[in-house]
Amino acid sequence: MKLEAQWIVGFVDGEGCFHVGINPHKEMTTGYQVLPEFTVVQHKRDIKVLHALKSYFGCGVVRTNHGDRMAYRVRGIKHLIEIIIPFFMNHSLKTEKNIDFKKFRHVLLEMEKGNHLTSEGVEEIRRIASQMNRGRLR
Amino acid sequence: MKLEAQWIVGFVDGEGCFHVGINPHKEMTTGYQVLPEFTVVQHKRDIKVLHALKSYFGCGVVRTNHGDRMAYRVRGIKHLIEIIIPFFMNHSLKTEKNIDFKKFRHVLLEMEKGNHLTSEGVEEIRRIASQMNRGRLR
Repeated sequence: MKLEAQWIVGFVDGEGCFHVGINPHKEMTTGYQVLPEFTVVQHKRDIKVLHALKSYFGCGVVRTNHGDRMAYRVRGIKHLIEIIIPFFMNHSLKTEKNIDFKKFRHVLLEMEKGNHLTSEGVEEIRRIASQMNRGRLR
Repeated sequence: MKLEAQWIVGFVDGEGCFHVGINPHKEMTTGYQVLPEFTVVQHKRDIKVLHALKSYFGCGVVRTNHGDRMAYRVRGIKHLIEIIIPFFMNHSLKTEKNIDFKKFRHVLLEMEKGNHLTSEGVEEIRRIASQMNRGRLR
């Protein structure tokens, strides 16, 4: 299955999610680990679409999400910064999800500067992340 | 907002629905009215995307779905046959939703021949419609 960039934008406008997790982590100096991820969830019957996304981007994994739902997921910071973010900068999302994407990008730029390794940086990222996915229904 | 065909295909692969309602109706000879509809539902914050779909296709309406969700909806048989179906014939859906689309098209072709006005036709349409949207989560 061959995907076109605009199909991906439309599909992600519908089904994609940009999320930043901030989890307690004893081994980090700040006490927290920042975990950004880009995911697209589908019923397992459409797993071939998730694999097509993985092939298109050349990064990420296809995993069980829960129950009979599967997810295409990119967590690697390098892949997010070098592949996923440039793609959605070049091909803008058309829904309000673009606002989440911009906040997601902001967090990744902070991480690129290493700010997620300082307490002040984690607090700034927490502030940005708290404004994401507001009122989303899934 | 200007939409490209492939963006629409991707968005409908995620968010669109092809549905055939068969409702009791006293004034129809068969006792039933067949109501095909194509819908795309979004939170009201993305109403501009629904209006962009309406502009692109030049048919249909944008209405409240329920609560804070809005729907772009095409019910007119002429618009479905002359605009919506040819669009998705020329630009194939990539998910399993394409199977629903083909059944939806089958129903519309039956209706174009007037078969929904006979009891046998309604039964055939009921058989096709019963195989649509199976296991869909929304």
